[in-house]
Amino acid sequence: MRSLGKHFLAELFGCKSEIINNVELVEGHMKTSVLLSGATIVQSVFHTFSPYGVSGVVIVAESHLAVHTWPEHDYVAIDFFSCGDLECERAISNLQIGFGAERIEIKKIDRGVLEQLSPRKEEFLNRIEKQ
Amino acid sequence: MRSLGKHFLAELFGCKSEIINNVELVEGHMKTSVLLSGATIVQSVFHTFSPYGVSGVVIVAESHLAVHTWPEHDYVAIDFFSCGDLECERAISNLQIGFGAERIEIKKIDRGVLEQLSPRKEEFLNRIEKQ
Repeated sequence: MRSLGKHFLAELFGCKSEIINNVELVEGHMKTSVLLSGATIVQSVFHTFSPYGVSGVVIVAESHLAVHTWPEHDYVAIDFFSCGDLECERAISNLQIGFGAERIEIKKIDRGVLEQLSPRKEEFLNRIEKQ
Repeated sequence: MRSLGKHFLAELFGCKSEIINNVELVEGHMKTSVLLSGATIVQSVFHTFSPYGVSGVVIVAESHLAVHTWPEHDYVAIDFFSCGDLECERAISNLQIGFGAERIEIKKIDRGVLEQLSPRKEEFLNRIEKQ
């Protein structure tokens, strides 16, 4: 299906709780994975929850990779929104290895299916380009 | 279904291109929407693309709200991951109004379904709480 973006939602089960509760390790695996996919990092934000768990997002030029971890359940939720020609599966495989996940489930969802969109607005684009 | 989180993916069609190409307006609508849902903002990151389009994420204590806009197609993709008791639909409705969207499609996906998770690790929790 032709679309503006692909959105991968991955569920990682049986992860190592000591890894996924460590914000520096989580951030490191996320950034490595983004780079392995071929994306360009724009900015990242990571946050440690009290008493446990990590949330973070890496904004990439081609969209975002977000993570939320539940060390008390050995569980990690990932979403990777890509609007470029990225190797998202490679990034997700690297996270699976890095977090020590025993099992993974991935959903791939088309975002902005071309047939549903307004036609490309040439008048708007010309105006923006002149600014 | 009992799960750790709910992930809402919303497609907004027929938005006003002048609004969704303006990073300050997009960020304002996103933050207002997060607060209307009852969430607590931890941090936010917004990024303007060249020559057009905006990407951004608001990290909330209860997870994240992300946006990507394509003004040339009047289209906005939103995802709201919530692991708390938030009014996500209220946030998304506010974005629909703020971006002037003519049509919206929403998918709601359970993340971390309880039956699939490891049992709560009391030994890990006790150790973390003593640190």
